[in-house]
Amino acid sequence: MSGVIHGVGLGPGDPELMSVRADRLVRNARHVAFFRKAGRAGRARGIVEGMLHPEAVEFAMEYPVTTEIPLSDPRYNEILSAFYADCVAHLRALAAQGEEVVVLCEGDPFFYGSFMHLYERLKDDTDVRVVPAITGMSAAWTATGMPVTWGDDILSVLMGTLPLAELTRGALDSDALVVMKIGRNLPKIREALTAAGKMDRAWLVEYASMEGQTVMPLAQASDRVSPYFSIVIVHGQGRRP
Amino acid sequence: MSGVIHGVGLGPGDPELMSVRADRLVRNARHVAFFRKAGRAGRARGIVEGMLHPEAVEFAMEYPVTTEIPLSDPRYNEILSAFYADCVAHLRALAAQGEEVVVLCEGDPFFYGSFMHLYERLKDDTDVRVVPAITGMSAAWTATGMPVTWGDDILSVLMGTLPLAELTRGALDSDALVVMKIGRNLPKIREALTAAGKMDRAWLVEYASMEGQTVMPLAQASDRVSPYFSIVIVHGQGRRP
Repeated sequence: MSGVIHGVGLGPGDPELMSVRADRLVRNARHVAFFRKAGRAGRARGIVEGMLHPEAVEFAMEYPVTTEIPLSDPRYNEILSAFYADCVAHLRALAAQGEEVVVLCEGDPFFYGSFMHLYERLKDDTDVRVVPAITGMSAAWTATGMPVTWGDDILSVLMGTLPLAELTRGALDSDALVVMKIGRNLPKIREALTAAGKMDRAWLVEYASMEGQTVMPLAQASDRVSPYFSIVIVHGQGRRP
Repeated sequence: MSGVIHGVGLGPGDPELMSVRADRLVRNARHVAFFRKAGRAGRARGIVEGMLHPEAVEFAMEYPVTTEIPLSDPRYNEILSAFYADCVAHLRALAAQGEEVVVLCEGDPFFYGSFMHLYERLKDDTDVRVVPAITGMSAAWTATGMPVTWGDDILSVLMGTLPLAELTRGALDSDALVVMKIGRNLPKIREALTAAGKMDRAWLVEYASMEGQTVMPLAQASDRVSPYFSIVIVHGQGRRP
């Protein structure tokens, strides 16, 4: 008798944009796990507020570091590896007892998701199942009210954490663009898009599909402090009859 | 009193992967519209089989051409434009009567979707609302059992209909890749991925999330006749603690 770890994508934030399968798994779960920053309620946990079974046991996995240590510091990897190992040990033990655990994942679990770090450590000895979900970028381009890609448009997804030169090259090479991980990278992203001639078509979307959703031309967001999870969209201009 | 046209993304094919909102809109709709090839049941219509209200009125929008006329022929655009104009006239008339119409859309409506052609013609004079959805590519990378993007990976989405040189350049410029619109473009896609040194990491996914789902290394699919809606995935190899 062995249990299952479900990596359940919750989508962009609006609970109505969860899949029918995710909705059912979340409502029936007796064990739920989720990442959060220490001292916060957790973004994934917030999406399912009011949906959990009254007897659900919650396992909050609190990041030991977020931005206190730079990614380039070797300690960053050591600390996070140890953290993931602890999380995995707990989940594996639950599965070994025959439990089903729902790991709550923002967005789509296999698309730049934190769950992937658990998945890679569990998949060889534990039954892990993944439920895909609506990505934050889908909610963002829907919020702009304009289709993102037409015909043979090339779409590239870039992280705002990339160096300026790579951001610029990526923006030049594509027709349509999604830039994620915004926050304090916004000035660099603006510089890259300006260099690539795409600034006048760029939109900044904050809180896509959630309360407080905001859509504005990036050119008008000069001094804006935008959340890390904001998304920049540049729409393609491809073939359309 | 004016109605609403809902562009409802149904996701990749598995009805359980429809969003809670899409599921509700589809089940309650008194008018549903969908594209299909002449003589076929329609892919979007197939996803909702058994879900429609008994009194739902169905409006099948049958493409006048698919591959009979090349895209480069000016008649292609003329014929399709006239077809979309007819579809839109019908939908606009229903909305003017105060009806709500659900347009069934495979995948995500604003991501290479046919609905965009209706949307652009309706949005200025009709209340059109779009429900994003799980993309076919999310279902495809989930089917491979491997996360598609890590850390700062650049993901590019390429259409198999692109010329070889552009496919090759796009494949070279990115860490992770999604190639859509496969079918008879498969040999060209193989050539581009080989030239870009990514062939040994490429997977071919057919019927993602649906009956008949198949996942195989692209290198082993040499003589395969793969459906147009198959998807090729190359996973990123980015940073992971």
